[in-house]
Amino acid sequence: MYNIALFGAGRIGQVHAVNIADHKETQLYSVIDPFSQGTAALAEKYGAKQQSTEEALADPNVHGVLIASATDTHAELIELAAKAGKAIFCEKPVHLDIERVRSCLAIVEQYQVPLFVGFNRRYDPQFRKVREMLSAGSIGKAESLLITSRDPSPPPAEYVKVSGGMFRDMTIHDFDMARFIMGEDPVSIYAQGSNLVDPAIGQAGDIDTAFIVMKFPSGAMATITNSRRSGYGYDQRIELHGEKGLLTAKNIHENAVEQWGEAGCVAAKPEHFFLQRYDAAYKAEWTHFVDVLAGRAQPECSGYDGELALLMADKALESLKTGKEVKL
Amino acid sequence: MYNIALFGAGRIGQVHAVNIADHKETQLYSVIDPFSQGTAALAEKYGAKQQSTEEALADPNVHGVLIASATDTHAELIELAAKAGKAIFCEKPVHLDIERVRSCLAIVEQYQVPLFVGFNRRYDPQFRKVREMLSAGSIGKAESLLITSRDPSPPPAEYVKVSGGMFRDMTIHDFDMARFIMGEDPVSIYAQGSNLVDPAIGQAGDIDTAFIVMKFPSGAMATITNSRRSGYGYDQRIELHGEKGLLTAKNIHENAVEQWGEAGCVAAKPEHFFLQRYDAAYKAEWTHFVDVLAGRAQPECSGYDGELALLMADKALESLKTGKEVKL
Amino acid sequence: MYNIALFGAGRIGQVHAVNIADHKETQLYSVIDPFSQGTAALAEKYGAKQQSTEEALADPNVHGVLIASATDTHAELIELAAKAGKAIFCEKPVHLDIERVRSCLAIVEQYQVPLFVGFNRRYDPQFRKVREMLSAGSIGKAESLLITSRDPSPPPAEYVKVSGGMFRDMTIHDFDMARFIMGEDPVSIYAQGSNLVDPAIGQAGDIDTAFIVMKFPSGAMATITNSRRSGYGYDQRIELHGEKGLLTAKNIHENAVEQWGEAGCVAAKPEHFFLQRYDAAYKAEWTHFVDVLAGRAQPECSGYDGELALLMADKALESLKTGKEVKL
Amino acid sequence: MYNIALFGAGRIGQVHAVNIADHKETQLYSVIDPFSQGTAALAEKYGAKQQSTEEALADPNVHGVLIASATDTHAELIELAAKAGKAIFCEKPVHLDIERVRSCLAIVEQYQVPLFVGFNRRYDPQFRKVREMLSAGSIGKAESLLITSRDPSPPPAEYVKVSGGMFRDMTIHDFDMARFIMGEDPVSIYAQGSNLVDPAIGQAGDIDTAFIVMKFPSGAMATITNSRRSGYGYDQRIELHGEKGLLTAKNIHENAVEQWGEAGCVAAKPEHFFLQRYDAAYKAEWTHFVDVLAGRAQPECSGYDGELALLMADKALESLKTGKEVKL
Repeated sequence: MYNIALFGAGRIGQVHAVNIADHKETQLYSVIDPFSQGTAALAEKYGAKQQSTEEALADPNVHGVLIASATDTHAELIELAAKAGKAIFCEKPVHLDIERVRSCLAIVEQYQVPLFVGFNRRYDPQFRKVREMLSAGSIGKAESLLITSRDPSPPPAEYVKVSGGMFRDMTIHDFDMARFIMGEDPVSIYAQGSNLVDPAIGQAGDIDTAFIVMKFPSGAMATITNSRRSGYGYDQRIELHGEKGLLTAKNIHENAVEQWGEAGCVAAKPEHFFLQRYDAAYKAEWTHFVDVLAGRAQPECSGYDGELALLMADKALESLKTGKEVKL
Repeated sequence: MYNIALFGAGRIGQVHAVNIADHKETQLYSVIDPFSQGTAALAEKYGAKQQSTEEALADPNVHGVLIASATDTHAELIELAAKAGKAIFCEKPVHLDIERVRSCLAIVEQYQVPLFVGFNRRYDPQFRKVREMLSAGSIGKAESLLITSRDPSPPPAEYVKVSGGMFRDMTIHDFDMARFIMGEDPVSIYAQGSNLVDPAIGQAGDIDTAFIVMKFPSGAMATITNSRRSGYGYDQRIELHGEKGLLTAKNIHENAVEQWGEAGCVAAKPEHFFLQRYDAAYKAEWTHFVDVLAGRAQPECSGYDGELALLMADKALESLKTGKEVKL
Repeated sequence: MYNIALFGAGRIGQVHAVNIADHKETQLYSVIDPFSQGTAALAEKYGAKQQSTEEALADPNVHGVLIASATDTHAELIELAAKAGKAIFCEKPVHLDIERVRSCLAIVEQYQVPLFVGFNRRYDPQFRKVREMLSAGSIGKAESLLITSRDPSPPPAEYVKVSGGMFRDMTIHDFDMARFIMGEDPVSIYAQGSNLVDPAIGQAGDIDTAFIVMKFPSGAMATITNSRRSGYGYDQRIELHGEKGLLTAKNIHENAVEQWGEAGCVAAKPEHFFLQRYDAAYKAEWTHFVDVLAGRAQPECSGYDGELALLMADKALESLKTGKEVKL
Repeated sequence: MYNIALFGAGRIGQVHAVNIADHKETQLYSVIDPFSQGTAALAEKYGAKQQSTEEALADPNVHGVLIASATDTHAELIELAAKAGKAIFCEKPVHLDIERVRSCLAIVEQYQVPLFVGFNRRYDPQFRKVREMLSAGSIGKAESLLITSRDPSPPPAEYVKVSGGMFRDMTIHDFDMARFIMGEDPVSIYAQGSNLVDPAIGQAGDIDTAFIVMKFPSGAMATITNSRRSGYGYDQRIELHGEKGLLTAKNIHENAVEQWGEAGCVAAKPEHFFLQRYDAAYKAEWTHFVDVLAGRAQPECSGYDGELALLMADKALESLKTGKEVKL
């Protein structure tokens, strides 16, 4: 049984707490979050301790840490945990500044601890099945990938200001998905964007609607379409065209009930947002991390993957500003 | 080029007129309908004559007749046309009284003219594909058939009174469909029904909602569900379960546009009614009849098929009244 | 925290064990199953005791019992638990013999303990939503209900022999569903059946394919179609037609990935069987039972519901044998 | 009754001949095609004359011309017909060279004859419904448009060489669709492409797979994804995202039959190619042109629309070569 110290008792920390407790090889050992009012309650629910960062990292009973705290604390916590010799599961991103990411990863490299970066969508059963069916040759060679990623409604402008911008905050998941599905890194990126959803986002210097085109060494291409607001729930789909046909992962809907009447045939919307849609993905990524803890696997989603997704976001931003495709 | 005399210039007569004119081997030669105000216009549109019944049947230029007049004229027109040696396409039913059907068919037999009874749904591309896939072995042996047949809205009570009742008027198509798909005749029929849609239908002595169960010599079974009103267009579906799986013919919808929003995912209703839904079927049955005219085929849908579908309706009515399954 | 004694450590007992443990108000207190080799492992996993029937029922710490043992032990265990004053959750059926059911329920009545009978499908989110939308008036008055219930593959003939027959073993769920959706009890039942799937089932005196028609006091009707083998997974659907349209609960599929190619558009099969399909229903019925334990609710699914579903199965069997609809 | 002279007796000419003959206000008066072996047969089928270009344009009985001949003859025939005062329906494109298009349109302007350019997809009922629902406010303001357009299989390299390249030959339809749906002209275009389908296409100097991104004055954006080969029929879809949700026009499939079995749920592929898919669109555009002939309408799809779609193709090609978005 592996003991896990959880950094961050917020919404995403609570999701991980359930999965840590439910897994037969892990238990929630301690919760570290001096800023949250829910820390004590969360710890109590699972019979866990409350610790300080220093206590947790110095505690020899802690086998692994899960970092689900505020984004700007990730890099430092990774470095401290690496120095303490703990296995690390960190929510994306490592940091919003790529140089800081690189210096952090250098520390991880130096201390030789496993680091898993939580690009949870790689563990969505739908997207994973597309990847597996591609690998199994079901559509031949991949040629065109279309990623649709739309949030149900826009975040507050206050969040946008500290988010690093849409590409680093939201599209970064899609950049990673493109690499995951295609199995190669892009050679060029073009981005176009607009502020259409909420003027406050534009005033914060960001966009809320984007189209991105990438080209890969094989000649294959991918596009990402993003919006901060769909109007119909969380829209998370991919289409992968290959030599012999198409693999498409459709949305998961709220239910399977249809109403047919004068107004037509009405089905339910897609699941509302990531907590619902990616519930299975959060469980599956934790299962993978337990394999890493147990030495049965290497992190499938590494610090390097985090770095590259951020680099793609940076290059997309450069393209948006210059109107040119940018080489990687 | 075969010359066709069309009896009946009403709605269904007009559907056939288009198909007669569009087929490269037939032309509309004459229209016979003393009761319709549209007879002259229909004849003029296609450069056809207006004739009386006597003129048409005595005219050696007429190769075939299409009987689309009022139901109670079918049997007599069939007999007259048979005696005149014309090939006959008759809209269902031959007659609402089975003894009258039998005497009529005896005349047809005596004069050896081809008679096609227009169970148009056999020519619907969806249902025909199910039949073909069954024959090709795609689901093994047929076991359970479910026929859904619901009209968009109920007919006027005046119509109901002269219709012969729901089973002879509406379900008769589904009885024929059951025989067409299963390739065998039922050995028993059970029917249950209610007057739920329009009290005037009940006052006219009829039902408007029905469930029918049939058993076949192979042990396979079929059910028909009917309603005079769906609330969402014309509902025409079948499900055929076999040893290895299911074949299902779904509705044809008004269009392929979906709207996703707060209210869910809204798609179009099924096609409104038979003129829209069975447009391709009307064309295809005429193509078959031209093959009959040209001696390239025997009528796939014969007077006997008309007789048997009516017999099934009569037996269903007996079951409805007695609460017992009735043997055939 | 309520302590639960679980009778039966088999497949379905294990499903309940997880839900008992996951619910924040209940814990698995003891497991009683002298015949299973997995009893010790199950108890250990959740930190529960192993007890005998006598020990569990005499233990004042036990607040409720969950009976998931062999069918022929249900009635006796219910009686013993009732006499011990425990709240009871019992898997369906109470017993295969209706007189035995009635005598058992009389004991429950005498000792005034809450009894919940586990017709889990009432807690399936899809079916429940149909019921809720009907209640909310979305399609007006209910008129026709179609229940499709097909197992992926037939049980062994050995099981069939002790199952009480298809109607008491399998269709009983659909009988309960018909009452749950329609909100009224049928006045007549007709059943037709065949042995098509496996000759060994016929040799065991049972059928494996059935069509059932019921009529309700309102004039509404329902049909159930059953097969012991679908060929494509677990087929669990309902269609409810009303004055203003249709509510339909479709299958839940294994995933949301489609492959489009020369062979057409291929989507995943329905979930394999009840453990997958009704996972959410098992959780939800437990949540309801905890409300019963806590005095916040009366059992929505009572002994009387169990009795009536069995009565409907008995009447269907009578109809199958006599070829007549049977009055209730 | 308007007499129509048809230039070109090939595949697309034959499609138009049927629609000319079926429309109640037009008849096929003459066919002009000295190069086709099918000219005489086509003329005979509809009781039409064979004429030379000179004869047809000098014939005062000819009210309109339909130009469906080889692409490189369009501009000259338009000019001749304009000078002869005939109303003109011309298949796209006017010409592959934009300067030649402009000089041709100047002649049309000078002689004041109506010219309709056959961007048939504007008349597809699906796409038209999206346009109408947008206009009706069903999703608020348009924000993102995704056009998917994939041919079932690539053309021969010989065709590619004279086609003007993928953008002018295939994508031109999608450029026009973007303008039709959005109701505004793009301000910038970016294109990325590859030769993935057939090396012979690359050797002919062309691409066969493309992604295009456009931005509009309102800030809305559109993307087009093209491939010369889908592997699953003709893929013709659009998604239009707006403030309040999504309108999506899905493919039309070969039939509505599904097979459920061990391999999953198999539905039919999309209609094979444009003759099947756009059958209704060809009919509807002819109906519009008859309105133009009758003075009831102005051409909805003008020479200017043809010019602008070609300009977009030229700009896309420039972007493909330079790696920059190009301003319009």
